[in-house]
Amino acid sequence: MFKRFCGATAAKEMLLDHCLPLKRIESLPSVLAEGRILSQDIVSPVSLPGFDRAAMDGFAVRSADTLGARPHAPVFLGNFQPVRTGMPVPGDYDAVLMQEDANMRGSILETTAQLHAYKNISRIGEDISQGEAVFCEGHALRPPDVALLSALRIDQVQVYEKPKVVIIPTGGELVAIGSRPLCAGEAYEINGLMARLYAEKWGALAEQMVIVPDDEGLIREAISANSNADMIIIIGGTSVGEKDYAPKILMEMGELLVHGVRLQPGKPTAVGIVAGRPVVCLPGYPVAALCDLYLFVRPALQKIGHRSDAEPKVSAKLARKIPSRPGYLSLVRVALKDGEAEPIMISGAGILSSVARADGFVVVSEEKEGLEAGETVEVMLFE
Amino acid sequence: MFKRFCGATAAKEMLLDHCLPLKRIESLPSVLAEGRILSQDIVSPVSLPGFDRAAMDGFAVRSADTLGARPHAPVFLGNFQPVRTGMPVPGDYDAVLMQEDANMRGSILETTAQLHAYKNISRIGEDISQGEAVFCEGHALRPPDVALLSALRIDQVQVYEKPKVVIIPTGGELVAIGSRPLCAGEAYEINGLMARLYAEKWGALAEQMVIVPDDEGLIREAISANSNADMIIIIGGTSVGEKDYAPKILMEMGELLVHGVRLQPGKPTAVGIVAGRPVVCLPGYPVAALCDLYLFVRPALQKIGHRSDAEPKVSAKLARKIPSRPGYLSLVRVALKDGEAEPIMISGAGILSSVARADGFVVVSEEKEGLEAGETVEVMLFE
Repeated sequence: MFKRFCGATAAKEMLLDHCLPLKRIESLPSVLAEGRILSQDIVSPVSLPGFDRAAMDGFAVRSADTLGARPHAPVFLGNFQPVRTGMPVPGDYDAVLMQEDANMRGSILETTAQLHAYKNISRIGEDISQGEAVFCEGHALRPPDVALLSALRIDQVQVYEKPKVVIIPTGGELVAIGSRPLCAGEAYEINGLMARLYAEKWGALAEQMVIVPDDEGLIREAISANSNADMIIIIGGTSVGEKDYAPKILMEMGELLVHGVRLQPGKPTAVGIVAGRPVVCLPGYPVAALCDLYLFVRPALQKIGHRSDAEPKVSAKLARKIPSRPGYLSLVRVALKDGEAEPIMISGAGILSSVARADGFVVVSEEKEGLEAGETVEVMLFE
Repeated sequence: MFKRFCGATAAKEMLLDHCLPLKRIESLPSVLAEGRILSQDIVSPVSLPGFDRAAMDGFAVRSADTLGARPHAPVFLGNFQPVRTGMPVPGDYDAVLMQEDANMRGSILETTAQLHAYKNISRIGEDISQGEAVFCEGHALRPPDVALLSALRIDQVQVYEKPKVVIIPTGGELVAIGSRPLCAGEAYEINGLMARLYAEKWGALAEQMVIVPDDEGLIREAISANSNADMIIIIGGTSVGEKDYAPKILMEMGELLVHGVRLQPGKPTAVGIVAGRPVVCLPGYPVAALCDLYLFVRPALQKIGHRSDAEPKVSAKLARKIPSRPGYLSLVRVALKDGEAEPIMISGAGILSSVARADGFVVVSEEKEGLEAGETVEVMLFE
């Protein structure tokens, strides 16, 4: 029987309570830090622009010299210097006369515009001044941020390390993908690949271990050997059968927080703590494993990795009614078509073809008994 | 003066009309094809499951033998075989009796459940049958799709090549990031890095060329040397000044479709075609370059690369009024806080610090004169 049966939301919260944001940091060249999370505040060591910069093509002039200039009453200047956009304005001058407002008359410049001081000049430090706070700890660096760091001449940054996730697939019937032809009753181990690709997408460094047979001692060894991981994902052996060792092992090696979740699909899920690290046990059925990855592993990795990446989602109208079991959280695969979400009602947590046809899933919360046709729902898009 | 001044939406459509979905394909191991776009339909070479598979732990039995079994009227079976979930059901049997409905009495099995044929059995081909269509050409492979391909024993797939984008930064005042300290009037070339990181994020293979000085011949050479690219991005020299060579060069080497766009920021943008390939010329001001990347380069790369990646966005209420110039498309940077979008009204296309503080941008369309405080807007999140 399930030993720690609980609701899906409660199970997720228990897991998250035991996930701590990573403290380990590393130093990276700024130009390679895109997508990483700053572990330090960034203060600008320089001013940007670093000099009074022409904001237009034209002529550097002294603003006082242009006093009184108007379209039909030009003023003539003997003291000026041509400048191009982006160039420093020489120290003697304090404004830039636009090409359009200027006429060269021999060596004399005619202006029809009266300029105030610093007209058409980007002043030193206008964008960022030396000592100004630019980014806070926890900021996720995007391409323009990395560009800005380079502009500020910050060539190294401190970022949090990526969380280290170890994936341990279990099951005597499993064979490593493509390693040899399958015999009767065997299957390729595909959940480990799926979990690794998602963990990497969600910001982790993921390592897929070799398949462990249904052997209590060997599963235990695999967990012990990876106690330096920030999260362990065990796949298979999570239900209530004789050879479903994972929950029992968690109980003995640490603490079993959850065994059995009111989640469809994904009921035979277990969550525990070993040596202070979260261990998430996914069912071997691929669709159930996928739901667990989204419901448990994604938020856990976000928390450990200091991330808050937006979940890609769209709104859509439900094309058909979705029934669901009250008290259970249901993740219902849907295909999007013309702004409508068509539920893919194939039951069976083993049916990967249903995912192939799905664009995402709709979450039906515990207190609901399904959703009605025509309701507007949020569809979480499979990444 | 701008030579082909036009509206932002019209400019984008002109560019997209000249972008053709890539025809070049490559073959990849399926396990490495995550994120890539299929250039072939996928038909399953096998059935999944490949055999009648037990869906429960229990006993393989003949359903006919269970006739009449009820909770208080058990039936006794001499012909059965223990099976575990996922195992093949031996050929003699056509149903699986769940552990919970069974009792072993010595060598006799007692059942309190009458089973119909194939009860608790996943039938051969139930998920996918041999010859069934699984994915269509154009499908973007996600982690569960790659897992499914492996389960179907498809170890190689044909995908479209990634679009090849060449980025040519121009400007005599520019210095490669970190290559040497800057002299007065110089700046590090940061737009090329930003463009490369975005192009890669949007599915391209991007190559950043060395900085080309403001020299007509050298810019021309750089374009000619990269005529095998699927898109060329030129940065800088796109306005109407004396040394803004890019538009003139496009006109001479091919066709200048757009020069000057009713876009804020991003007015000095040019789009052209050289040797049948789209060339997008971004202004040197980094915020304007960023807006152009989102407005022009992203959709163009999506079309060339057969992609339709959802733009990450959220809804929010505008915290303050946004003014905008009618007839112009405006991309206004906003910071998100407590469900509100706070416009960052610093003008100046050079102000990268405004992007550092922004979570995304709001698009104000051409026909509007700004947006009111309290309006619900879509915020495109900077990726």
